[in-house]
Amino acid sequence: MSLITVGTMAFDAIETPFGKTDKIVGGSATYVAYAASNFLKPVQQISIVGFDFPKEEMDEMRSRGIELDGVEIVPDKKSFFWAGRYHEDMNTRDTLITDLNVLADFNPKVPDSYQGAEFLMLGNLMPSIQMSVINQMKTRPKLIVMDTMNFWMESAMGDLEKLLKQVDMLLVNDAEARQLSGQFSLVKAARTILAMGPKYLIIKKGEHGALLFHGDDVFYAPALPLEDVFDPTGAGDTFAGGFMGHLAKTGDISFENMKRGIIVGSAMASFCVEKFGPTRLKEVNTDDINRRIDQFRQLVSFDIELV
Amino acid sequence: MSLITVGTMAFDAIETPFGKTDKIVGGSATYVAYAASNFLKPVQQISIVGFDFPKEEMDEMRSRGIELDGVEIVPDKKSFFWAGRYHEDMNTRDTLITDLNVLADFNPKVPDSYQGAEFLMLGNLMPSIQMSVINQMKTRPKLIVMDTMNFWMESAMGDLEKLLKQVDMLLVNDAEARQLSGQFSLVKAARTILAMGPKYLIIKKGEHGALLFHGDDVFYAPALPLEDVFDPTGAGDTFAGGFMGHLAKTGDISFENMKRGIIVGSAMASFCVEKFGPTRLKEVNTDDINRRIDQFRQLVSFDIELV
Repeated sequence: MSLITVGTMAFDAIETPFGKTDKIVGGSATYVAYAASNFLKPVQQISIVGFDFPKEEMDEMRSRGIELDGVEIVPDKKSFFWAGRYHEDMNTRDTLITDLNVLADFNPKVPDSYQGAEFLMLGNLMPSIQMSVINQMKTRPKLIVMDTMNFWMESAMGDLEKLLKQVDMLLVNDAEARQLSGQFSLVKAARTILAMGPKYLIIKKGEHGALLFHGDDVFYAPALPLEDVFDPTGAGDTFAGGFMGHLAKTGDISFENMKRGIIVGSAMASFCVEKFGPTRLKEVNTDDINRRIDQFRQLVSFDIELV
Repeated sequence: MSLITVGTMAFDAIETPFGKTDKIVGGSATYVAYAASNFLKPVQQISIVGFDFPKEEMDEMRSRGIELDGVEIVPDKKSFFWAGRYHEDMNTRDTLITDLNVLADFNPKVPDSYQGAEFLMLGNLMPSIQMSVINQMKTRPKLIVMDTMNFWMESAMGDLEKLLKQVDMLLVNDAEARQLSGQFSLVKAARTILAMGPKYLIIKKGEHGALLFHGDDVFYAPALPLEDVFDPTGAGDTFAGGFMGHLAKTGDISFENMKRGIIVGSAMASFCVEKFGPTRLKEVNTDDINRRIDQFRQLVSFDIELV
């Protein structure tokens, strides 16, 4: 099975209570691809970069089975750049700089070689851009998952509503689920969002784990309690990459297998936050991942006889 | 096995986004006892009330196997009274009124008939009062669990430190664990607190579940996602009552059985928040509890083959 991932490849400058970086490589599709490439090859990337995006990073990606035929390189513009500062609780952050650069012209083209992919991950982008990718697919993928953010709810709600009817799953954080639904209770928010189109909803709660909703079924995976969250940038995209990587590898989109995908995604996200940027994702191997997944199993397992 | 529970029996006046109450019955020992009485009898209560505490409530308690020999009734003073207002997220609240009344004179006496109890739950009280109960026990209970709060960390830290060396388990919320340890990371907070004396630590995270720490072992139980949290008052004490009730019923203080206790406690807490005060705790029966525990099992269960 193959997986198409659409999103940004970019530079980030990050400040956390633990330190600060100059421009380092980031972007939603970068994290998704690095995480997913542990589970299947190829991962087919669609993105846009400027002249300044490092050739070495693209070589590294290719060496891990990430295809870049769908990545447009704009020779006379810079890559998308974001700078932000995290607060102590790491759940909130301030954006300091957003330089769209090449992203202002992003008009993704699905290469012919990507046609037939059965899994499609639409990273957070303008909803009309996400929709254009779906429209270019000659065969509808088996599972289309999208991310979004509050900005599009405020500026492009009409397009977002249309898009929600075309995807199988929405993957957002708790604040986004609340804003999209107008409901504070996540159970009510889930019901409202599922009525807007997607059959599945994942609500990411950062250090508090993730919830999967489908009809009346709910699954709650905690996050691994960590000594330090060094840098949460990209953790949500890494979660998505692990989730989609597991599903695409197994080809199984049952609710039971989605639960497993959430554990895999949570394990990958727990690595991501250990160092700045995607650094840690490039270090881990299958043994590391298996050990982390086993920690999750031990963390939540219990058996109980009913009283 | 029998269980002694020490704490307040009181009146609360509560405002939530869903409504507001006049004075209703509350208090930590009230919630602990109602929750625990589903699992074992007797529950042996130690508390203090004024002339105004309803005789009907005490009759109700007795009918559920809650012994009140250790409850002092002060004929010329009022019961402890707390009034508070919850914010929309229900995780934070403002205290509007605290009238200590009889609580100012609380000097708990362990009745002879309570001696030999194997489980002791010390609700949140001045640390020297909690210590006096331990000192009165002729045989050390098998498991001593204590709750506390930030106020005692600021006003009686010396006594609190002495007490922590005398108990087996501390049960606090995340903010309290952070303040007590001076650590933001809950993993680091747990290590610091376990070094202060207790062998076990439970950190309650409200809607985000609860963590159990013991040595290098960790267990994370999520909270049931609820449509509405109507009134969170007493949820933490109800959790403690379910937890202690399960342990005392089974007599098993292994880590595995503590995990089960946390699921039972979480189930009881999920009932507590459905109505004002302890109302809902008096309505549920064993079938309701079993169904809720089964929901927890479904909520978190997954099986995964390592990749």
